[in-house]
Amino acid sequence: MKTITSPSNPTIKFIRSLKQKKERESSGLYYVEGIRLIGEAVRTQQKIAHVIVCYELLDSSFGKELISQIVEEGIDTISVPESVFESISLKEGPQGIAAVLEETWADLGAIMNIKGLWVALESVQDPGNLGSILRSADAAGGKGIVLLDESTDPYHPTSVRASMGGIFSQKIIKTSLEGFSQWKKANNYPLVGTRCGEGLNYRRYNYPKDMILLMGSEQKGLSSQHLEICDELVTIPMKGTVDSLNLSNAASIVLFEILAQHSG
Amino acid sequence: MKTITSPSNPTIKFIRSLKQKKERESSGLYYVEGIRLIGEAVRTQQKIAHVIVCYELLDSSFGKELISQIVEEGIDTISVPESVFESISLKEGPQGIAAVLEETWADLGAIMNIKGLWVALESVQDPGNLGSILRSADAAGGKGIVLLDESTDPYHPTSVRASMGGIFSQKIIKTSLEGFSQWKKANNYPLVGTRCGEGLNYRRYNYPKDMILLMGSEQKGLSSQHLEICDELVTIPMKGTVDSLNLSNAASIVLFEILAQHSG
Repeated sequence: MKTITSPSNPTIKFIRSLKQKKERESSGLYYVEGIRLIGEAVRTQQKIAHVIVCYELLDSSFGKELISQIVEEGIDTISVPESVFESISLKEGPQGIAAVLEETWADLGAIMNIKGLWVALESVQDPGNLGSILRSADAAGGKGIVLLDESTDPYHPTSVRASMGGIFSQKIIKTSLEGFSQWKKANNYPLVGTRCGEGLNYRRYNYPKDMILLMGSEQKGLSSQHLEICDELVTIPMKGTVDSLNLSNAASIVLFEILAQHSG
Repeated sequence: MKTITSPSNPTIKFIRSLKQKKERESSGLYYVEGIRLIGEAVRTQQKIAHVIVCYELLDSSFGKELISQIVEEGIDTISVPESVFESISLKEGPQGIAAVLEETWADLGAIMNIKGLWVALESVQDPGNLGSILRSADAAGGKGIVLLDESTDPYHPTSVRASMGGIFSQKIIKTSLEGFSQWKKANNYPLVGTRCGEGLNYRRYNYPKDMILLMGSEQKGLSSQHLEICDELVTIPMKGTVDSLNLSNAASIVLFEILAQHSG
C-alpha cells in the first residue's frame, strides 16, 4: 500500500479531475465513493485502477474487511490522511473509501447476446435521473441501458451514486438515432415507446419477454423519428394538474408493470 | 410596476435570501421561478407577494401575456435588468420571470375534510425526491402530503421546481410521529405502509379509496413506531442486485398501482 500525504500529488489531482466529463472521456476512468458501492464493485469484479482509503474516517468493520480483501487481491491501494480524502470526496460525512474504476461500454450486439428487458433513453439530461433509472432497471431485472443521441454521462458521479450499483450490473450502450434505427430494422427486436396522452394504457399491453422500453427526454419526450420505429406506444394515464411525470418515476412505473406481468 | 436596478437593493437581497431555510421559516415566503410554474401559481390562485420580471430575458409570448395578467390583477410586480435577475435566478438560461409566494400549510384535520389518497413521508431528506413525489402524488390524484418528524423543506427551491406545480395542488401538513399516531388512533383513517422484503406484494392488496400511503426515509425505511400503526404493510418485489429503489420511484410505483386499481 502506498501513502500519499499531499493534496497536490499528481495522482490525487488526477482523481479530483474525474469530476469533469472531458477527463473521464480521455482516460476512460471514473470515480466511485462509499463502502457499499466499492463493496459492490469488488463483488461484481469491476476493473479497479486504484482504491483510496483514509483510516481516520473508515470506522465500519465491513469497510475495514473490504480494504483487507482489496489489498489481498493486489489492487493498487493508496492510503491518505483526512485532509487529502476530503479534497477528493463528494460526500458530506465521507466514509473514507473511494476508487477509480474503468468505464465499461457495450455495443448494440450485446442486446442480441443477452436478450431480456432493456431500456433506451433519448437525450436524457439529468445524471440523477439516469442513475436512478439504472437502479430501477436493475431492480426490475433489466439487462442494460441504451443511450441515444446526446445524453448525460452515466459515469458522472451523481449518476454513479444514484445508481446504487446499477451502474455495475447494467450493460451500457451509447449510439446515434441512425445507428439504433438501422439496428432495429436489421434485428426486429421488440421496441415499446412511451408517450404522453395518445398511446395505449400501459397496463393493458402485454409486454414481450425480450424487449426495449424506449423513453424520451425530460423536456421533449420522444422525437418523431423514434416514435416511428416503435412497435407499440404506451401511455401512463394521469389525474391531477401536472402534465407529466419525472422521467425516472415514469420509467420505474412502466418497468415494474413489465416485471409484474413477467412474474405472472 | 416598480423598477429596481441595483442587485444590492434590500428587496432583491431578501429574495436571494429565500434560498436559505431560516429565511423561509421566519418570513413564511418562498421563491418560484419560470413561466410554467408562475403561470400555474396564478391559475391556482396562490398568494403572490411579488413577481419579478426581466423583459430582456422574457421572450415567450405566453410569458408576456402572463405578466400583463399579473399586472392587471394588481399583484406587486418588479421590473429588473438582466444583471439583477441573474443575481436571484437559480436556473441556467433563466426565462425572466420569478415570484415570491406565501407558504401554505394545512393540519391533520384537512385529511378528514378532503379525504381521498394522501401520502405520508417519514424524515424525507432529499428535496428533489420530495418535489418529484409531490408531482407524482398530484398525477395519481392525491390530495396532499404529510411530512413526519424532521423532514426536508417542501418549499426548498429544488423541491418546488421538481414538483412541477404539485406544490400548489397538494395540501402540505407537517407533524410529529406522536401527533400523527394520536390522530390515527382517534380517526382510524386507513394507513398502508411500505417496507422492504416482508410485506404483502403491493399488487395483491386492494387499496381503499380513502387512505394514506406511508413511506420511510431514503436511508432507513419506516421506523418501528410507524410500522406499528399501519393497517397493512406492502412490499415491491424486486430482481437484480440493488437492495432498494429510489424513494420517489418507489412512491410512484405504488401510487400508480393505487390509481390503476381505483380507475377500475
